[in-house]
Amino acid sequence: MSGETSEIEALIALMARLPGLGPRSARRAVLHLIRKRGQLLLPMAQAMQKVGTTVRDCLNCGNLGTADICPICANEKRDIGMICVVEDVSDLWAMERANVFKGRYHVLGGTLSALDAVGPDELRIPQLIDRIASEHVSEVILALGATIDGLTTAHYIADHLPGVTVTSLAQGVPVGGELDYLDEGTISAALKARRSL
Amino acid sequence: MSGETSEIEALIALMARLPGLGPRSARRAVLHLIRKRGQLLLPMAQAMQKVGTTVRDCLNCGNLGTADICPICANEKRDIGMICVVEDVSDLWAMERANVFKGRYHVLGGTLSALDAVGPDELRIPQLIDRIASEHVSEVILALGATIDGLTTAHYIADHLPGVTVTSLAQGVPVGGELDYLDEGTISAALKARRSL
Repeated sequence: MSGETSEIEALIALMARLPGLGPRSARRAVLHLIRKRGQLLLPMAQAMQKVGTTVRDCLNCGNLGTADICPICANEKRDIGMICVVEDVSDLWAMERANVFKGRYHVLGGTLSALDAVGPDELRIPQLIDRIASEHVSEVILALGATIDGLTTAHYIADHLPGVTVTSLAQGVPVGGELDYLDEGTISAALKARRSL
Repeated sequence: MSGETSEIEALIALMARLPGLGPRSARRAVLHLIRKRGQLLLPMAQAMQKVGTTVRDCLNCGNLGTADICPICANEKRDIGMICVVEDVSDLWAMERANVFKGRYHVLGGTLSALDAVGPDELRIPQLIDRIASEHVSEVILALGATIDGLTTAHYIADHLPGVTVTSLAQGVPVGGELDYLDEGTISAALKARRSL
């Protein structure tokens, strides 16, 4: 008997499974929700229900949306000649926040990983190859993480997309970043990719 | 246009209002929920709906429950002669986890605060005074925080409960605590309250 009613306990147990929340912070969050029942708890329950029942993967690119084809794929103003390949929907959102890419996306759903036994068919790589064949794509930009698995995935994709320009995001010093705080790998990459002014 | 659909954006905005989550971690949490739609998102929506529609304050003590009287107040095995006064439901839960107190509780809903203009009538203090008069209470244990406002509240309550023993939790070195990491106030309190062995 820990004091909470079973309804509250059940909600705390679910909240504790969110990334960034543990059992302790889940309890705090649930109490906060109960205090703000009308402004927060019930609207959140409805928002979750709505997202859970309406949001689905875009059949074309893997982005999230509420229709078979996501708003980005359906937007005729976007350049159909360029596809930016990202690991995850969160990376797509980050690209969109930067507001500089006007083409379309392809969400892999992860990276190749020997350790986790993730092969090309576990990712949306076959669909990417199909898109290159059927759409008029001139350039594929790989915006994958600079990790071992990210680089492996980038090389695999580059090898399997003949007849299309494959580029990847530049590596270097982040804008506003101080050298002092950068790891050697980034400094080394930035030096190799140095430009004349 | 930031990439998220309006349904997802609305949920992120609500999640970002939880204590411990910011806009960034709310985005991560929502993506995690969408990925675990069946196991996490929809069950959480239902759990929130249920808590939001069934959970209410106990009319007697202010604890949360699903009936007019909470399970602790309704439990005839609990000692009706002792009331433990806590600031918040989370403190009641902490006391219950310690599993040492067998009396009943009274949840104030905060502390007196001159700065935030919280007076006795904003808290459940009048109800506490009523309970002392109507129930057969022999001891009131104050389990309030060792803050200025907590101490002010403790003194106020002690002054307004004539004819009943009012005690408060001991202050001292936490069990398992190392002196090195303790503040001077705690060490000073522990020294003043030293016991002979």
